[in-house]
Amino acid sequence: MLTLTVLHSLPPFAIGLARDLRVRWALEEAGLPYRVRTVDQAGQQSADYRREQPFGQIPVLQDDGIAIFESGAILLYLGERHPALLPVQARVQARMEATMWMFAALNSVEPHVARLGELLAFHAGEAWAQACRPGLEAMAARRLGEVDAWLAGTDGVDRAYLAGEFSAADILMTTVLRMLDRTGMVDGYPRLAAYKERCIARPAFGRALADHAGQYTKEVADAAI
Amino acid sequence: MLTLTVLHSLPPFAIGLARDLRVRWALEEAGLPYRVRTVDQAGQQSADYRREQPFGQIPVLQDDGIAIFESGAILLYLGERHPALLPVQARVQARMEATMWMFAALNSVEPHVARLGELLAFHAGEAWAQACRPGLEAMAARRLGEVDAWLAGTDGVDRAYLAGEFSAADILMTTVLRMLDRTGMVDGYPRLAAYKERCIARPAFGRALADHAGQYTKEVADAAI
Repeated sequence: MLTLTVLHSLPPFAIGLARDLRVRWALEEAGLPYRVRTVDQAGQQSADYRREQPFGQIPVLQDDGIAIFESGAILLYLGERHPALLPVQARVQARMEATMWMFAALNSVEPHVARLGELLAFHAGEAWAQACRPGLEAMAARRLGEVDAWLAGTDGVDRAYLAGEFSAADILMTTVLRMLDRTGMVDGYPRLAAYKERCIARPAFGRALADHAGQYTKEVADAAI
Repeated sequence: MLTLTVLHSLPPFAIGLARDLRVRWALEEAGLPYRVRTVDQAGQQSADYRREQPFGQIPVLQDDGIAIFESGAILLYLGERHPALLPVQARVQARMEATMWMFAALNSVEPHVARLGELLAFHAGEAWAQACRPGLEAMAARRLGEVDAWLAGTDGVDRAYLAGEFSAADILMTTVLRMLDRTGMVDGYPRLAAYKERCIARPAFGRALADHAGQYTKEVADAAI
């Protein structure tokens, strides 16, 4: 049985963004049942949990004695076992295209998007934030434009997904793009906005988001008691 | 024959940091010969190159009709073929441990380290940079401390490498840590500093750095003519 570790509670603004959503979505796409384990703030600091997750973060996925942290590594692990998430190893270029876009979502796009998202969420009113905001916005916009251009395809035919068929790369990229939802920036790129809508319209995403939000809504209520 | 794409020229501060070094190091560890192709600034903007690398960045690795971008994806591709870089698939937990640390280097550590590194390199004198520097330093320090704690092992015995044996994860983590060389921050964590020294003492790193720096020193000179 697969066990997914999520936080015990979340501040309301982080509901829909915490990274267990990525794994829930992948598990739904692959049709894999799982159970949920929660870790609270004290647990995150414990030596036991740090042995599983050295940064004290979520998610962790356990599968019959195997334990994996980092959402990207978890999706790679699931993708190696479920072609719904990653093309089979024999189709080398197709598989690498999906893998490249997994890393691109996490390493070429997320750092810039997350930086801007955090600035707006935590420091919007501070003078230094106002001074550096235009630079961060320009860098995030550049990356959004580059992904948008990729979706146009080299032959002028729109790509429905980053690597041809839907893959784990689209789960990562969509959850990164959603970090900017409150800014409306993605809407400035019609192909990218349509791509994001196409991904979140998948039934698997709907189920994952409902489970994620349902869990945390309850936990937030619990925590407030 | 493997072909690695690198930039035609680099500003001096980026020599030793540009991400082709990661791939050169991995190729040296695996004992794989390769040739080098350069791309200049105009080339980076071209539609042809953007088809290969949608962000116009380096490195790209070509291998007999397969083309891969993102340094993490390239190391994963090489690791799937060379056990010197990644444990074989049959040893699931060992392989996943190396893979988790590849993602951790790129997604849990690099964003914070790179953010601080860029601030110090490009904006150190600006008032807003001075206002946000303490927060960035604290976050980078937290991540360094967490990796340092991991290297202590759960049984009090130091780990020589992140995932037991040397792996692609150490190439990524070491090249991330080197982004802070001018700050001296890593030296505040004796195990982490010793780990970094152990990694860069590997002959493969020495060869990779010499080839990398040799190429760019010449290219910088060329560009200045």
